Amino acid sequence: MSPEQARREQDLVDRVVASFDDTESPRLRQLMQALVRHLHAYVREIRLTEQEWSTAIAFLTECGHVTDDKRQEFVLLSDVLGVSMQTVAVGNEAVGDATASTVFGPFFVDGSPRIESGGDLTFGAKGQPCRVQGTVRDLTGRPVPGARIEVWEADEDGLYDVQYRDERVAARAHLFTGDDGRYSFWGLTPTPYPIPHDGPVGRLLEAAGRSPIRASHLHFMVSAPGLRTLVTHIFVDGCDYLDRDSVFGVADSLVKDFVQHSAQEPPPDGHDLAGRSWASVDFDIVLAPAE
Amino acid sequence: MSPEQARREQDLVDRVVASFDDTESPRLRQLMQALVRHLHAYVREIRLTEQEWSTAIAFLTECGHVTDDKRQEFVLLSDVLGVSMQTVAVGNEAVGDATASTVFGPFFVDGSPRIESGGDLTFGAKGQPCRVQGTVRDLTGRPVPGARIEVWEADEDGLYDVQYRDERVAARAHLFTGDDGRYSFWGLTPTPYPIPHDGPVGRLLEAAGRSPIRASHLHFMVSAPGLRTLVTHIFVDGCDYLDRDSVFGVADSLVKDFVQHSAQEPPPDGHDLAGRSWASVDFDIVLAPAE
Ligand SMILES: [Fe+2]
Ligand SMILES: [Fe+2]
Repeated sequence: MSPEQARREQDLVDRVVASFDDTESPRLRQLMQALVRHLHAYVREIRLTEQEWSTAIAFLTECGHVTDDKRQEFVLLSDVLGVSMQTVAVGNEAVGDATASTVFGPFFVDGSPRIESGGDLTFGAKGQPCRVQGTVRDLTGRPVPGARIEVWEADEDGLYDVQYRDERVAARAHLFTGDDGRYSFWGLTPTPYPIPHDGPVGRLLEAAGRSPIRASHLHFMVSAPGLRTLVTHIFVDGCDYLDRDSVFGVADSLVKDFVQHSAQEPPPDGHDLAGRSWASVDFDIVLAPAE
Repeated sequence: MSPEQARREQDLVDRVVASFDDTESPRLRQLMQALVRHLHAYVREIRLTEQEWSTAIAFLTECGHVTDDKRQEFVLLSDVLGVSMQTVAVGNEAVGDATASTVFGPFFVDGSPRIESGGDLTFGAKGQPCRVQGTVRDLTGRPVPGARIEVWEADEDGLYDVQYRDERVAARAHLFTGDDGRYSFWGLTPTPYPIPHDGPVGRLLEAAGRSPIRASHLHFMVSAPGLRTLVTHIFVDGCDYLDRDSVFGVADSLVKDFVQHSAQEPPPDGHDLAGRSWASVDFDIVLAPAE
């Protein structure tokens, strides 16, 4: 590249950065000036052609046009580029042995039913019964009594309750830890499901030879006064999709041993399994201090 | 930042980059992997919060929803971040004293009327008459006969013909250079106009204390066999907006002296000015070789 060309490109970056100098909000100024630097570095590094630029504009336009109250293609795009997960990582820094965070996802619903610890949150959702138990502790190892645990998951068809056209509430609930910090509940053994892939983001995955499947998981949100709220999943050891989760939500520390039990083996709490096989998993949770 | 935190963030980037390894098109692989690196570098550097991420998703969603056949908010966004201009700069590298390129803009129309060199392309558009003349040459200084020159511009109200609800065709035309490479035409002295700013991009400009105004300009597209097609503008020396053009299209080499003439001063070609004052400007054009 000629010195004149390099000068023109850098001069342009400098002018665009300077155009945000008078932004009233210092944080917005920082966000925009850094965005300009990174976007321009990208365009310059890969020598983006005008045709490629047009394709990108058309792609974003299509994402906008398929997005509505039910479908959020920009979130999907952020998810499959790992940007959602990176934002979660940045916002929930590693501290001691605090349980790792992962993506929130679109299927949490406020106002889930409350169950007692030990209760069943399936409410008729189809799938293998799975007993989940553990203890919530803080970084010092002290049990956290009264921690609120929200749990939600897909059924064995890979669908959350809110994806059905009826008004069902199933495979979601909240419960509280006991005085010893312990909790348990009956849910479903998680199964894999695809993110929506019939739009532009699906075409991108296809072009990249990538699967839209999310590794089997169970969502948790755990909160307690004075502690950092934890949004995470647990994943099923042995699931085929652990190394290619479409939204990069998997951390090794969140992969758990879901132990299979035959119908003949009675569960420890005498839960009525109607003659079905079942699974069990331990998930001990460590909450970081609130910032 | 703890080493564990840095490891998590970098590991995530590496996994997302690797997820594009099997992209069939080598260029798409390169584009996506570089995009991932730059996006993640941005999120990590500015420690993007989940709230800011949500605001960005909502902003893109709104851009998508105001975009239709007539309005392209993603192009506007690219323009005000200087990304459009950087793409033009990258795609039209400086070579010798070839005339600098600038943004194409949304107002070019295929099939403009042809005028003879020396003719008038205003077709009734309002504004001060302006005589433009010059020579088209190649890098060796040889005149280029038969070069096609497309010209288009806004009227004195800052509107292009296609922005009116009628079917007018005005202030646009094409012509060809003569055997000596020379051309001239009568157009309008350009005036400033705003880019559309009643949408999310307008709000961003407002928050940044930036003007939506484009510095006064006249659009050119010049093509000839064996030479690189030039898309550019000329700007008016003394225009208030030269240093804050909303889309960063200005280059010093494209700022020209528009000489003012009183109604009493006759133009060199005897053009009928109906008693009005007029302007004149020289614009000599140098075309790079085709790639
Ligand atoms: Fe999920
Ligand atoms: Fe224009």
